[in-house]
Amino acid sequence: MRALSRGAIACFQLMSDSPAATDRIAVGIVGASGYGGVQLVRLLLDHPHVTIAHLAGHSSAGRKFSELYPHLGAFLDLPIQAIDVEAIARDCQVVFLALPNGIACTLAPELQARGCRVLDLSADYRFRTLDTYREWYRPDDDAWPTDAHRAANDRAVYGLPELYREAIAAADVVGCPGCYPTASLLAIAPLLQKDLIDPDSIIIDAKSGASGAGRAAKIGSLFAEVDESFHPYGVTNHRHTPEIEQICTDLARQPVRVQFTPHLIPMVRGILSTVYATLRDPGLVADDLLTLYRNSYSRQSPWVRILPPGTYPRTKWVSGTNTCAIGIAIDPRTQRVVVMSAIDNLLKGQAGQAVQCLNIMHGWPEAIGLPKLGFYP
Amino acid sequence: MRALSRGAIACFQLMSDSPAATDRIAVGIVGASGYGGVQLVRLLLDHPHVTIAHLAGHSSAGRKFSELYPHLGAFLDLPIQAIDVEAIARDCQVVFLALPNGIACTLAPELQARGCRVLDLSADYRFRTLDTYREWYRPDDDAWPTDAHRAANDRAVYGLPELYREAIAAADVVGCPGCYPTASLLAIAPLLQKDLIDPDSIIIDAKSGASGAGRAAKIGSLFAEVDESFHPYGVTNHRHTPEIEQICTDLARQPVRVQFTPHLIPMVRGILSTVYATLRDPGLVADDLLTLYRNSYSRQSPWVRILPPGTYPRTKWVSGTNTCAIGIAIDPRTQRVVVMSAIDNLLKGQAGQAVQCLNIMHGWPEAIGLPKLGFYP
Amino acid sequence: MRALSRGAIACFQLMSDSPAATDRIAVGIVGASGYGGVQLVRLLLDHPHVTIAHLAGHSSAGRKFSELYPHLGAFLDLPIQAIDVEAIARDCQVVFLALPNGIACTLAPELQARGCRVLDLSADYRFRTLDTYREWYRPDDDAWPTDAHRAANDRAVYGLPELYREAIAAADVVGCPGCYPTASLLAIAPLLQKDLIDPDSIIIDAKSGASGAGRAAKIGSLFAEVDESFHPYGVTNHRHTPEIEQICTDLARQPVRVQFTPHLIPMVRGILSTVYATLRDPGLVADDLLTLYRNSYSRQSPWVRILPPGTYPRTKWVSGTNTCAIGIAIDPRTQRVVVMSAIDNLLKGQAGQAVQCLNIMHGWPEAIGLPKLGFYP
Amino acid sequence: MRALSRGAIACFQLMSDSPAATDRIAVGIVGASGYGGVQLVRLLLDHPHVTIAHLAGHSSAGRKFSELYPHLGAFLDLPIQAIDVEAIARDCQVVFLALPNGIACTLAPELQARGCRVLDLSADYRFRTLDTYREWYRPDDDAWPTDAHRAANDRAVYGLPELYREAIAAADVVGCPGCYPTASLLAIAPLLQKDLIDPDSIIIDAKSGASGAGRAAKIGSLFAEVDESFHPYGVTNHRHTPEIEQICTDLARQPVRVQFTPHLIPMVRGILSTVYATLRDPGLVADDLLTLYRNSYSRQSPWVRILPPGTYPRTKWVSGTNTCAIGIAIDPRTQRVVVMSAIDNLLKGQAGQAVQCLNIMHGWPEAIGLPKLGFYP
Repeated sequence: MRALSRGAIACFQLMSDSPAATDRIAVGIVGASGYGGVQLVRLLLDHPHVTIAHLAGHSSAGRKFSELYPHLGAFLDLPIQAIDVEAIARDCQVVFLALPNGIACTLAPELQARGCRVLDLSADYRFRTLDTYREWYRPDDDAWPTDAHRAANDRAVYGLPELYREAIAAADVVGCPGCYPTASLLAIAPLLQKDLIDPDSIIIDAKSGASGAGRAAKIGSLFAEVDESFHPYGVTNHRHTPEIEQICTDLARQPVRVQFTPHLIPMVRGILSTVYATLRDPGLVADDLLTLYRNSYSRQSPWVRILPPGTYPRTKWVSGTNTCAIGIAIDPRTQRVVVMSAIDNLLKGQAGQAVQCLNIMHGWPEAIGLPKLGFYP
Repeated sequence: MRALSRGAIACFQLMSDSPAATDRIAVGIVGASGYGGVQLVRLLLDHPHVTIAHLAGHSSAGRKFSELYPHLGAFLDLPIQAIDVEAIARDCQVVFLALPNGIACTLAPELQARGCRVLDLSADYRFRTLDTYREWYRPDDDAWPTDAHRAANDRAVYGLPELYREAIAAADVVGCPGCYPTASLLAIAPLLQKDLIDPDSIIIDAKSGASGAGRAAKIGSLFAEVDESFHPYGVTNHRHTPEIEQICTDLARQPVRVQFTPHLIPMVRGILSTVYATLRDPGLVADDLLTLYRNSYSRQSPWVRILPPGTYPRTKWVSGTNTCAIGIAIDPRTQRVVVMSAIDNLLKGQAGQAVQCLNIMHGWPEAIGLPKLGFYP
Repeated sequence: MRALSRGAIACFQLMSDSPAATDRIAVGIVGASGYGGVQLVRLLLDHPHVTIAHLAGHSSAGRKFSELYPHLGAFLDLPIQAIDVEAIARDCQVVFLALPNGIACTLAPELQARGCRVLDLSADYRFRTLDTYREWYRPDDDAWPTDAHRAANDRAVYGLPELYREAIAAADVVGCPGCYPTASLLAIAPLLQKDLIDPDSIIIDAKSGASGAGRAAKIGSLFAEVDESFHPYGVTNHRHTPEIEQICTDLARQPVRVQFTPHLIPMVRGILSTVYATLRDPGLVADDLLTLYRNSYSRQSPWVRILPPGTYPRTKWVSGTNTCAIGIAIDPRTQRVVVMSAIDNLLKGQAGQAVQCLNIMHGWPEAIGLPKLGFYP
Repeated sequence: MRALSRGAIACFQLMSDSPAATDRIAVGIVGASGYGGVQLVRLLLDHPHVTIAHLAGHSSAGRKFSELYPHLGAFLDLPIQAIDVEAIARDCQVVFLALPNGIACTLAPELQARGCRVLDLSADYRFRTLDTYREWYRPDDDAWPTDAHRAANDRAVYGLPELYREAIAAADVVGCPGCYPTASLLAIAPLLQKDLIDPDSIIIDAKSGASGAGRAAKIGSLFAEVDESFHPYGVTNHRHTPEIEQICTDLARQPVRVQFTPHLIPMVRGILSTVYATLRDPGLVADDLLTLYRNSYSRQSPWVRILPPGTYPRTKWVSGTNTCAIGIAIDPRTQRVVVMSAIDNLLKGQAGQAVQCLNIMHGWPEAIGLPKLGFYP
């Protein structure tokens, strides 16, 4: 078990009643130095079927992971290597890519060609048609995508397990959803699937903690700027809009346009999405929807929790877990439904969901290796 | 100048090129121990035409103000007296009431009968018809309101200066607006006045810092509960809903129902309101609305600031000021307008607005004695 | 396994490769509604050798635990019962007491008489001589302690595993240390044991997050009061002073007086203790002390982590874990040593340490059932 | 009055009963884009005897100030010019330098030669002997300082008004103190002046909000890193140590070495310094020291506030003001005095103090143009 220093093994050996290292799957993390990377390391260190076999990165290449995150130094002392497809493929069966947008679309096909399964945390494999991706992410890049990009993209699957579980199980490349789309789509999906709302009426007012911006040194992410402030951004043009619309359209079996507005909350972790839609049937009551939501999610979906009537989600309740908590209200005065969902943006909204996909890809229970009990307060 | 201790006078005497104490109006603050009270004290200590002549309260009666707020002790060392209408009226020309709902409706008529003008910060005088108030605030109180309550209420004015400036100037009792209604109404008013939106389409997704809950010792307001969390509350049934609807209805000259959802932000001060509405004319562009908003507010309204296109408000920009900052976006994809407004919930959302009304009632410039330059960061 | 609802069992059953419920020890938590209680519930739900069999409380009696902490409702749906010694002893082999000071000293002997082992999180069993306790905690209570109290106290053990591991293993009543003493004593102990510092020179400047004040509704703990502020309290007279001095005296084999000053940090979790002392031997260098500390702790103490030279602890590194991280600096200019220690005040500083003691009392590995990998950021 | 846009003048003209623009002194700010710069702009916009005539900067040259700080855009719309000594001297009588260390020592002499008085906020003019400065700030720069640097430095004055008021009044170049030294020296000065403590016993445990690191994009200053964390830094070797020692030595008339440890608090503004020292006379009581401190500061020093016995300062009390609040405790058990001081690190710790020096240099009252009433909470 390479990921543990000898001292740590001595201390913690009795904590693992889990498979021997030889039975574990070797995984690599490319882009290990960011917040996505450190979440993956944290989760995978605790995963009973996995060994972290390779860390790679660009700006952090040559440094030890323990220098970047000293608190994990006792548990993982691997160096971060320069990105080398051959080396990664030699060491790993599965590779997580936690890189800026626009890199995975080149890297993933090479890894796949060498036998690796890939979970990508960027936007590169989230879109069914790369034209949509280009329009929102690379508007001035006429040379992109190539036919090879299109071919690779056609084989990728959107990694939202609660909606695309079976496709994920069979996939070699998974495009893990954005944080906002995860929270928003889990909130709205049952209504669209059952055709209960006017699809043109959807308004998603979403709010995220500051860790969503990553570990990049930007003035707008400084403590002094973010703390004691709250503001919207990307109004009418945030890149998660087409991602949400693509899945809504898929669920509704008709084109759906949504109004999506993200805001920055002065806290580290958590997304809360408040979704408004007009009900087709004004006679629906909250209990109807609770039953619908529980049926949609409960049986197979250990990570979605529908709250009782009158209870609305709080990000603190799901912080440090892979859970999505959903609360539902109907307003008879306005004939609207208000669905509120809360996730930990770095877990269910990012790295946790990627591990959930990994579990599905290997036929393991969906909940294994993922935190279910948050600390409070 | 009773409000200053001798030492402080010595230190700061040169800071006041302002009217002598004898020319100042004597004001009282009833409910001086809460966050509304301390804001009023802070503002009025700096107001050139006012002297704080009387502090009163219920639970804090008998204590000195400087015990409750030691940082202001050098500037105001008055005791907080038990609430005594005769004593208040003897000491004061104007009285601010910063009390829980349901008390001002009894106290204000008595003060008015003794010649005082009253600015009430509670909900008691915000509603044109007390039936609406009773429905949302005192649903089980059949004995209320009496005819006397109704008569007093008929003479009260809604204290949102940007919309009701002239009525405020002539009023003896002003019902100062709630914090959420202030931010929301300033955002939406020009659209309703000009009939540019579908009035049934208004959705107000509002977010407030924790000081809005006041200085009451409640578990839900503890640091450990609020910090690093974000959540909605009062979904579909918050009491500020009918207050917003009443004014919207007045502006639109037709009944308006709004969807209003408040959320709690882990920060002390600030409200941000994100307002969505469907445009009647899909050909409108952002510049049209900017012109409309600037015309609506700029000439007479020093405390509303319309931001340039593409700039959206941040609560930090207005913290510690009486300013309401408004940003406007049009989404041609959805034919909606998104108006975002930010205020300091304790100033423009509460005490600052009350002082602005005081200025209007006395024919002083609206901006006098109120902070315009916030500290940043 | 009563502590899990059926649905949760279905979802998470594969996560437990752990002993069957019949092999687990039944534990109870008295005082389950506070922050100490919810930490214990959280930790014990994940402990492979324990079943939560009984919850009791005073003010919360009659309510369900899931009402107080909805986020844990899927995992523990026990009611909180009124405190009844017979019922507790019938259900439990081990009882955690998480109550205000002054109650455990009456409750623990009764539980012990009925065969329960007791871990007390209050101050009641922390003092070798009850006279010291009375002086600092009950100065006006001449009727206390009785001989029975003294007898019970004589059998209790101070629950700081790194210093009193063997005594804890044999104890029936463990008085778990305070949060500040835990951080401070682990920082200073090796120096006193080896007689390397002037014992009169110890100054402990300690800082704690707001959760240390518990879930009591107090104005001083409100978000609006605590956030964006920092202040000392209990200067020269905090009750953790005699607790620290008692253990320092024990370690130094001579009377030790310390200067202890706690401060409140605007954050939820974490204590950082900065300890200053004058070195007897000015020729000591940092490497000497690193070796000493590593020898003192590393072999048997999985929960103490000595940081490399020049690295100083951050509370975020240990948040959500039972780890105490210690950094050491020597200042040759002043001939002082500066030792800095960080813990999660609710885990290593409270509930986690109690579970660590439980592990020792049952001969289980010290690290079992306790979180070692914190989330970051 | 160039600093105000026409619209703002219309709105706010009645707020200024202050001197006409022609009587105002023209000041410039070099380094206007940082947090020091924006504080200066904010304060000087409200100063009755000053007009902001020139903004300059390096990285921000060519941009408008209102782009960087939109919330002040209505009040100051000057461009930030490239640093040009001739242009600055032509426009300004007084220049504030808010630049990184090592630039002012070149710029100030040139400005002074052209008739400008200079207030420098960097470390360049804080040291009586440049050898000390070089040792701590430029250890590898053998070519520095030149004789010209030494000559310029000999004419500079340390800008802590409470200690060096008369020298400041006559100075042409003022080296404004660091934030930590300001808080620490005001806490300890009366004790050293009266020889009441053992000068070798001074330990300063200081804590600062995150704005002290400035508006530089650094990973360590990101919200996600700073929030919910607390840690020491610069242990035994922070550059403010020799600055504090220099003034302590001056006050004590004998060499003084201090132990100084700074920590980072997860909040924006504020420093709290906890200072420990051993009393020479163990019979001293708190009242003696209160009298001493009040005598030392009260008469001439409007910005130092000595708190009553048993009251200890909170950073929130002084946030947004130029006040330094000091609380004093004596511990008869240890014969130590504990002095705690709180300031707003960006006002009394930086820009506010510079304006206070400006007031002294021009014979204006020390308190003029500076905020005395903080907002709370």
